[in-house]
Amino acid sequence: MSVNSFGRLFRFTTWGESHGPAIGAVVDGCPPGLAIDEGVIQPFLDARRPGQSKYTTQRQEPDQVRILSGVFEGRTTGTPISLMIENVDQRSKDYSDVALAYRPGHADYAYDAKYGFRDYRGGGRSSARETASRVAAGAVARLVIAEVKILAYVSEIGGDTIDPGKFDEAEIANNPFFCPDAAAAKRWETIVDDARRSGSSVGAVVECYASGVPAGWGAPLYGKLDADLAAAMMGINAVKGVEIGDGFAAARLSGERNADPMRPSANGPDGAPEFLANHAGGIAGGISTGQPVTCRVAFKPTSSILTPQETITRDGQATEMFTKGRHDPCVGIRGVPVVEAMMALVLADHKLLHRGQCG
Amino acid sequence: MSVNSFGRLFRFTTWGESHGPAIGAVVDGCPPGLAIDEGVIQPFLDARRPGQSKYTTQRQEPDQVRILSGVFEGRTTGTPISLMIENVDQRSKDYSDVALAYRPGHADYAYDAKYGFRDYRGGGRSSARETASRVAAGAVARLVIAEVKILAYVSEIGGDTIDPGKFDEAEIANNPFFCPDAAAAKRWETIVDDARRSGSSVGAVVECYASGVPAGWGAPLYGKLDADLAAAMMGINAVKGVEIGDGFAAARLSGERNADPMRPSANGPDGAPEFLANHAGGIAGGISTGQPVTCRVAFKPTSSILTPQETITRDGQATEMFTKGRHDPCVGIRGVPVVEAMMALVLADHKLLHRGQCG
Amino acid sequence: MSVNSFGRLFRFTTWGESHGPAIGAVVDGCPPGLAIDEGVIQPFLDARRPGQSKYTTQRQEPDQVRILSGVFEGRTTGTPISLMIENVDQRSKDYSDVALAYRPGHADYAYDAKYGFRDYRGGGRSSARETASRVAAGAVARLVIAEVKILAYVSEIGGDTIDPGKFDEAEIANNPFFCPDAAAAKRWETIVDDARRSGSSVGAVVECYASGVPAGWGAPLYGKLDADLAAAMMGINAVKGVEIGDGFAAARLSGERNADPMRPSANGPDGAPEFLANHAGGIAGGISTGQPVTCRVAFKPTSSILTPQETITRDGQATEMFTKGRHDPCVGIRGVPVVEAMMALVLADHKLLHRGQCG
Amino acid sequence: MSVNSFGRLFRFTTWGESHGPAIGAVVDGCPPGLAIDEGVIQPFLDARRPGQSKYTTQRQEPDQVRILSGVFEGRTTGTPISLMIENVDQRSKDYSDVALAYRPGHADYAYDAKYGFRDYRGGGRSSARETASRVAAGAVARLVIAEVKILAYVSEIGGDTIDPGKFDEAEIANNPFFCPDAAAAKRWETIVDDARRSGSSVGAVVECYASGVPAGWGAPLYGKLDADLAAAMMGINAVKGVEIGDGFAAARLSGERNADPMRPSANGPDGAPEFLANHAGGIAGGISTGQPVTCRVAFKPTSSILTPQETITRDGQATEMFTKGRHDPCVGIRGVPVVEAMMALVLADHKLLHRGQCG
Repeated sequence: MSVNSFGRLFRFTTWGESHGPAIGAVVDGCPPGLAIDEGVIQPFLDARRPGQSKYTTQRQEPDQVRILSGVFEGRTTGTPISLMIENVDQRSKDYSDVALAYRPGHADYAYDAKYGFRDYRGGGRSSARETASRVAAGAVARLVIAEVKILAYVSEIGGDTIDPGKFDEAEIANNPFFCPDAAAAKRWETIVDDARRSGSSVGAVVECYASGVPAGWGAPLYGKLDADLAAAMMGINAVKGVEIGDGFAAARLSGERNADPMRPSANGPDGAPEFLANHAGGIAGGISTGQPVTCRVAFKPTSSILTPQETITRDGQATEMFTKGRHDPCVGIRGVPVVEAMMALVLADHKLLHRGQCG
Repeated sequence: MSVNSFGRLFRFTTWGESHGPAIGAVVDGCPPGLAIDEGVIQPFLDARRPGQSKYTTQRQEPDQVRILSGVFEGRTTGTPISLMIENVDQRSKDYSDVALAYRPGHADYAYDAKYGFRDYRGGGRSSARETASRVAAGAVARLVIAEVKILAYVSEIGGDTIDPGKFDEAEIANNPFFCPDAAAAKRWETIVDDARRSGSSVGAVVECYASGVPAGWGAPLYGKLDADLAAAMMGINAVKGVEIGDGFAAARLSGERNADPMRPSANGPDGAPEFLANHAGGIAGGISTGQPVTCRVAFKPTSSILTPQETITRDGQATEMFTKGRHDPCVGIRGVPVVEAMMALVLADHKLLHRGQCG
Repeated sequence: MSVNSFGRLFRFTTWGESHGPAIGAVVDGCPPGLAIDEGVIQPFLDARRPGQSKYTTQRQEPDQVRILSGVFEGRTTGTPISLMIENVDQRSKDYSDVALAYRPGHADYAYDAKYGFRDYRGGGRSSARETASRVAAGAVARLVIAEVKILAYVSEIGGDTIDPGKFDEAEIANNPFFCPDAAAAKRWETIVDDARRSGSSVGAVVECYASGVPAGWGAPLYGKLDADLAAAMMGINAVKGVEIGDGFAAARLSGERNADPMRPSANGPDGAPEFLANHAGGIAGGISTGQPVTCRVAFKPTSSILTPQETITRDGQATEMFTKGRHDPCVGIRGVPVVEAMMALVLADHKLLHRGQCG
Repeated sequence: MSVNSFGRLFRFTTWGESHGPAIGAVVDGCPPGLAIDEGVIQPFLDARRPGQSKYTTQRQEPDQVRILSGVFEGRTTGTPISLMIENVDQRSKDYSDVALAYRPGHADYAYDAKYGFRDYRGGGRSSARETASRVAAGAVARLVIAEVKILAYVSEIGGDTIDPGKFDEAEIANNPFFCPDAAAAKRWETIVDDARRSGSSVGAVVECYASGVPAGWGAPLYGKLDADLAAAMMGINAVKGVEIGDGFAAARLSGERNADPMRPSANGPDGAPEFLANHAGGIAGGISTGQPVTCRVAFKPTSSILTPQETITRDGQATEMFTKGRHDPCVGIRGVPVVEAMMALVLADHKLLHRGQCG
């Protein structure tokens, strides 16, 4: 019930602030005997790491993860896995303006309203830096669901969408946008760079699917797989919308158009049917159907922009603010590894839950 | 951690199947001393009740709620409130076809894949009938957050949207669609009736806002108010998408356009600012800002249609099915009281959580 | 996290007051496919039922359980099992004295201090009547751990203990005290009847063991099997002490005397050792060892006695009270089926937890 | 629901093994604004620290705690407080014997049975070293319940008890046994030293009371204050028994002798009564009464002794083992700060829970 933990059986708790000495996650409930070391986790952190292109924040963080517990002789022991990432490039020299006034669109005012004060350095706990902990925990989760393949990518930036007909999975790693459409990636260079130069920001949509999820994961009625995914994704910084399968588009279809008919399949595992469509995104009644689990996630443009905005000081006086410092012109891009991690974390939890109840 | 419970401090657990003797909810964690009796809950159930117009299922259920515990001399005692609603109009005479094959788009196949068998009568546990329990529990939650006004309505049916310029709150109760735009309601009569006559179905979008929520409710990072709302809404039967504030539209805005500037306000409570926009939907960093909390929820068209669909039997043989029996041509309509209830339940929980931690 | 629920994966929530219309339990997380009907549960309720001898309260309750959900065609479906027991013999005619003043040793004052008021009829929620719900839920739990045999009995009443050398399991069902020693049972007739006649009460110790528990159930460090048992037992009405294995006696042994040596065994399952002693009560490091899990539970004498005691009124005035009405001269006796139920509930939960994490 | 976390609103999660690089705790749900730094926590760790007298293990650990998050400018921020203690004096050179065979009375066999293998160095996760994390978390909890005074002490070692008539609180800090009776402390020097010299071990009883707890903390029926305390104490390494108030002795009293009468008090807070006795240990119906909350905790003699014991190897072969290395001849002694910490942690959680539900 901790509000800083996620999951039921496969569960992680994160801690740490943007400009504290370190951030970390404690992963609990991991099955024993899985092969792991830092090298298994690091590539996922590297994918999320800032400062790798001019399209992301220039904060330089090596994001080196250390495993402090729960692993012995290269295998998980079943006890809590403590993961720690030191903060290196903090530059918290001058935060006096942020200390005194609230950045519009940021959590500054809300934190103060809730807690009475806040760690204002770099956004403190509300910084997207915390998502590194999610990615590290997600790398452990992937070991639990080795049968599942998870893939996320950006499908839209600043309103410009990929051409689904040009979807090329291999392309995703070839550009700084996790974009599966080379032509779109080319266009986005301009869109994001324009935003960066002008001190503006743009939004993005990230799509994710998980294939290899067997039918039967998920748990009605308040542990539904889609509800858990919705919480997992909506909880990522800057996310404002989540869709499963056809999402809002399904609301504009007729029942006939939205149907996912089935027929017998010779290829599926153990009598599993072939589905003729996947409008449902691989989930029915909160339980996986054996089809790929799919979701779409909307990232708002970051509120860290150079154009001054009206706001108030802690004392309630009118002022204006704009964001100095290093920021992402499009936070959705680095959201891709985070979306994948949250997908993995939800699925790992439901795999264990299903095994617990149904054997 | 029960998958049939929702909430942390204000928490409810539901039970019951569509064609069992009754359904119910146990509401736990309710503050003591709140005035309550069945008459406080019944109006919300009446709003969700089927069979009230030709636009909803013709199943006739009085949906009379009984309070079995937790209330003494007209006040909540702080102990669990057991709410029970008897099933009356079950007609489970002939479910042999549903017993033998899987209705596409329904949870039939997923339940069998998970549990090995299922209560197939009327959808069993996966029936939307369960949402009556949510509505009953939500009526109790409203007592906890008396300072908050919650309002939901349908903004789109079958792709036809309301005209925001013609929004009239008073109109919502005047038509069978919870529609705030009289002209749209008129159009929807045709849309929904056409779907009903042809044995088809249409989707809908429900919008909900809660005003009067003070700044400070919500809990970073895995108990965020928006993440909890996302889970609450996505868990409702037939929901495929959830947006907070501008949702997916925010992904197409620039940072400047998406800003929610603040200025000092003489009218707000206790130094609270005036916001010049509410793209964020009243939530920043997972914590309420004092603005109205807003969300949009997409309901797919029900899969219960008269057009036969390919499917398989329990034995894995090919067959075709269409849905006999009484069903909603547009399940989103009756989703309105359910969306309101889930909003109330999330807010009540967060009010208590905030009070617990922050006094 | 609900304070009216117990368990993690196998979880139950109880509701109801002593003199309300009914009490009940919602059992959640039960594996699907287990054969069950009311007849499977009723015998355990009958064992706990009051009014069966002159040594227990004369309240007459049939304690007939009804299954309202979660069961289809005689098997559990994996969805919540709602169990309800109607209250029949309530006699709440005259509770004016209890309404106005606090019975010493009862929860009256504490409930008022917490909630501001209370349902004073028959103790309301704090009545031992609620333990019927535990026994009903425990009967379901037993189905989950069919490999385990659970046995509880009274080993001491009013300071008079059984002779361990005369332990006869078959004797337990032959007397109204769940006593495995016929001679002790004879003596207890006098002890309890004397207490009853004089309007006094006596305490008791209940011992319980569970054999057939495989090694590996339990979960360090805050889900230890012994810690969960301690909570389960201490939470039963009137319980003031819990021991695992040798308990307090272990504190008086040397390390050599307290050792539980092992040696290879040809008979044990799958390489399991033979233990030469069981001081630990079948649990090491919070995890079962394969030996019988044993505990001892101390029940205080009920505070419902005829001798007037000093107390205060709700208004803070001095007064005296004694307990009218029907009460148990030795509540520990009827605690036996409750202790067994809690043992079953803890073990069922840990079986599923272990399966979830370790497969 | 994590098995490595404890508490509901005030919650902590621990991680780490005896011979890993560090151990730690993440404290979540702490109210904001409490003054804290390492110096507030360190004295409690120093009290538990080994190697301070010849009566405890000679492992030398500075047990220096570091706060890694959740604190800003000397105050708690309301976000997770990550506490880390580096392991310094590990000496894991030679554990080959422990790796190959199971130490009787230790968790070795149980861990292997559960997880398939284990970190055998110094007991790994099952080592009492983990209790340092509890003590650190408990120091934070104390800040939340500043109105409460918690005091624990040893009342019995090796069967030799203190004289209650000679109880002197000031004496507790004057001897290496946390003993409130100077004469007993003198006797215990011999008892413990004899055990140490002969490679044996002795058990102990720790008593704890918390005064200043207002009436109304605790939560029926499965979050009872006494049940939570029982779980908290039974979960400490080597604990085999827990009593609240009179505990097992209450089972030997008559109802009249066990009564806790009340009368009006001019001195108590806000109409609180004066109690004439405290057999109940300050808890009725799972809720605090305003009297001191008292408990007794039995520690077994450690299983780490020099006398060889029969046991088996991982391969199931017969062998003998005795414990080399540094160990406590009486683990109960260092249990005193741990018992205090667990008391503080339970009370802090219940204070917040009560405030959450009842305002």
